[in-house]
Amino acid sequence: MIVAVCLNPAVDVTYAVPDHAVGQSHRVTDVRRRAGGKGVNVARTAHQLGARVLATGLAGGATGAMIANDLANAGVPARFLPVAGATRQTVTVVAGASATTFNEPGPQVSAAEWEAFTSAFAAMTRTATVVTMSGSLPPGVPVSAYAELTTVAHEAGAAVLVDADGAALRQALPSRPDVVKPNAVEAGELLGHAVATPRDGLDAARRAVELGAGAAVVSLGPDGCAAVIGARAYLARPPYGVTGNPTGAGDALVAAVACGLARGEQWSELLASAVAVSAAAVAVPIAGGFDTELAAQLRPGVVVEEVGCRSSTPQS
Amino acid sequence: MIVAVCLNPAVDVTYAVPDHAVGQSHRVTDVRRRAGGKGVNVARTAHQLGARVLATGLAGGATGAMIANDLANAGVPARFLPVAGATRQTVTVVAGASATTFNEPGPQVSAAEWEAFTSAFAAMTRTATVVTMSGSLPPGVPVSAYAELTTVAHEAGAAVLVDADGAALRQALPSRPDVVKPNAVEAGELLGHAVATPRDGLDAARRAVELGAGAAVVSLGPDGCAAVIGARAYLARPPYGVTGNPTGAGDALVAAVACGLARGEQWSELLASAVAVSAAAVAVPIAGGFDTELAAQLRPGVVVEEVGCRSSTPQS
Repeated sequence: MIVAVCLNPAVDVTYAVPDHAVGQSHRVTDVRRRAGGKGVNVARTAHQLGARVLATGLAGGATGAMIANDLANAGVPARFLPVAGATRQTVTVVAGASATTFNEPGPQVSAAEWEAFTSAFAAMTRTATVVTMSGSLPPGVPVSAYAELTTVAHEAGAAVLVDADGAALRQALPSRPDVVKPNAVEAGELLGHAVATPRDGLDAARRAVELGAGAAVVSLGPDGCAAVIGARAYLARPPYGVTGNPTGAGDALVAAVACGLARGEQWSELLASAVAVSAAAVAVPIAGGFDTELAAQLRPGVVVEEVGCRSSTPQS
Repeated sequence: MIVAVCLNPAVDVTYAVPDHAVGQSHRVTDVRRRAGGKGVNVARTAHQLGARVLATGLAGGATGAMIANDLANAGVPARFLPVAGATRQTVTVVAGASATTFNEPGPQVSAAEWEAFTSAFAAMTRTATVVTMSGSLPPGVPVSAYAELTTVAHEAGAAVLVDADGAALRQALPSRPDVVKPNAVEAGELLGHAVATPRDGLDAARRAVELGAGAAVVSLGPDGCAAVIGARAYLARPPYGVTGNPTGAGDALVAAVACGLARGEQWSELLASAVAVSAAAVAVPIAGGFDTELAAQLRPGVVVEEVGCRSSTPQS
């Protein structure tokens, strides 16, 4: 089973407006609401990939109830622990080609609530082969959260995949997660300079491995991904670019890597499938799914290149 | 008792962001949520004025539950009839001095849900002295809604105050509501040209009375209001302008007029109090309340002028 951790899920609200003018009042012509957040997207995508999955995290209030309902309707098993605060929402205002997003920080989580989650999580990991941990931490959850959960999951024998940024990622690395999946921006933070090319992606992945990760997969948007697994390094890219909504493509990559790990696939195979699924996620208008046919069509054309080793830091 | 009808209540969400740029992603630094909608604001303000009040309307989903909770926390009695769809939310993005609002249309209401409301409403009016009806109609509620409810309330012996615009107001007028309260924009629609001066406001009020209202109070923002009651006409203005958030000042005017009607006050007295309360509502940052001390301070300085009769339309 794949346990997909989403500590700060969100109700993703999308508003269609004829135009978007700062300072004005707008009549919204179409409203969509959907359970979201990176971990929820991972759970949905892994479910679509046929994996046994359990979404977990913290949820509260009316918005939290909506997360549970929406996942139940989608047939995705979920067990969110209750918090007194209300689960956040994100609002995306779409006007023609522009999309403007407003992200709430999330509910204040108490120490007792966090402790209740970690206890429940320890029980959940007993039947897990892979645990994914994705996205931001709500206020009150310690920045060491992913490090703590990685240790708990490892004690239960599960592999861990962390998709986080900033301090949460940095603190997770010494706990030796099996895989980390930063995007180019997050990878640039690790590297200390912007990731402008796939080679930069490799350098950043290598840096993440030096800092403790078993493997690092840096997602590079239309360029696929750069991956370092121990001493091996790969670049994997889709046969052609897919136009659409790139939101959630990184979550699809995480889900596909998690599924590959759960099935014990070779990394070269696993990366090819994951890049195809991630590109096919761009073709669907909402995050948390992918175009199955397109993924199957892209898969044979994904180029996975094993590349030579190079250290990102001078050996001392 | 004052029954405050709010057929399309809303959860009013306010986001603070450092700046607001179309096409960008924004981290929201502060989130406020509050039961809103014009009728809810009227109920809150009438409650603050010391009136016995019952808020009613249609509410559904998690957002609908939040309306009930929020009013219960404020001590405002409420009885909303359930609908399958979710109560709308409005999102206001505040960045520095700019406020940008996104208004959802509201849930689709079925014929059966509307019928259940009208039955329950008939029972509620039995103990009502004044019924207020405010704001937009959710999809599925007939545009004749306020006309129908006015007839029901009159049969129970209650006075009716309608604050609506467009077709909902036009259709309500022939059912002879005791008072209508358009703002300058809405009054301009009745008049066929913009309301630019208090005299234009009087003309529009007179037009509303000709079309069926017992009285019409046109709210004129910092200029107070223009009122026509049968053959009498008044201009009422606050002693000075109040700076702040004018959202909800019209609702405060409705609440104060309803309270005055419920107490059987003279119109000149009633208008003076209502203008003071409405101006004092501008001083509080959120709609649905007013600054009690400021209202008391403004009240003696409100100038209520009885003005001569003049017909807005040539006599044929």
